[in-house]
Amino acid sequence: MTTTTNSDGTTTIDAPTDLPVIRMSREFAASPAQLFRAHTDAELFVRWMGGEGSTLKIDQWDARTGGSWRYVGVSGSDEYAFRGCFHTVRDDRIVWTFTFEGVPDGVCLETFTFEDLGNGRTLLRSDSTYESFEARDFMVSSMESGVTAAYVSLDRMLAAGDI
Amino acid sequence: MTTTTNSDGTTTIDAPTDLPVIRMSREFAASPAQLFRAHTDAELFVRWMGGEGSTLKIDQWDARTGGSWRYVGVSGSDEYAFRGCFHTVRDDRIVWTFTFEGVPDGVCLETFTFEDLGNGRTLLRSDSTYESFEARDFMVSSMESGVTAAYVSLDRMLAAGDI
Repeated sequence: MTTTTNSDGTTTIDAPTDLPVIRMSREFAASPAQLFRAHTDAELFVRWMGGEGSTLKIDQWDARTGGSWRYVGVSGSDEYAFRGCFHTVRDDRIVWTFTFEGVPDGVCLETFTFEDLGNGRTLLRSDSTYESFEARDFMVSSMESGVTAAYVSLDRMLAAGDI
Repeated sequence: MTTTTNSDGTTTIDAPTDLPVIRMSREFAASPAQLFRAHTDAELFVRWMGGEGSTLKIDQWDARTGGSWRYVGVSGSDEYAFRGCFHTVRDDRIVWTFTFEGVPDGVCLETFTFEDLGNGRTLLRSDSTYESFEARDFMVSSMESGVTAAYVSLDRMLAAGDI
């Protein structure tokens, strides 16, 4: 198992050797309900997921069990589209499928859970299951940088009372 | 890799040792379009998937990319419900999520492809990716018996011109 602790000191990303999975965990100064809103409210989601120098445009967003989603990341003149469906949307758990449209037949199944740690803190975990180790390994490095930065933005929005 | 060739001589089920996946393949005397209809038309689907001694009742069925589905298998007084969403519905490919509601947090990602072999024959392949080897191994035996019987029913419906 590979464990990477990122520069903010709290995001842990594991890429186990026995399963084509990326496991991520991170604590937030937030309630489970706030993290749920951050992942299901389209206007909040695009703000923290957008990242530095790029913006996200929501094309489709129906955050309920059986709904579907699509967003486009815009960075200068480049656009990258992603899509999937919401398999489960529950207070403590979101499961969705995830495809980068540049690789239209690639699909990842992602589970997010929100675990109340008490004292106003919540543990976010995500499990992303890929169809092969090659696809998983290709994603690890971009996930590290992209998601770590996005979680810093989410921290800021929580501290500012925006969620 | 474990390869099982079932009694009808044509369904092959592989449970590889390196990925938590069940890979199945089977030829049919059918066109890709006929197999696509068999997997997307609710009335056809329940007839061949129902199996001996049980019937399927469709509760939700929106067989398009981004749609969702739910069906209930009824066997005597027992009912077993299954649900998921259609990640991709394309002429040559269907990707859906699959949950047995008795294990509500378990999710499987399944891909079906229809490959034209010429001479009126089509190769159906399915890849079912589980979150763990334990979940995969638990499913292998029931998939062998259930799906093999269902494909015999599908053969009969094709031979009868019902699809």
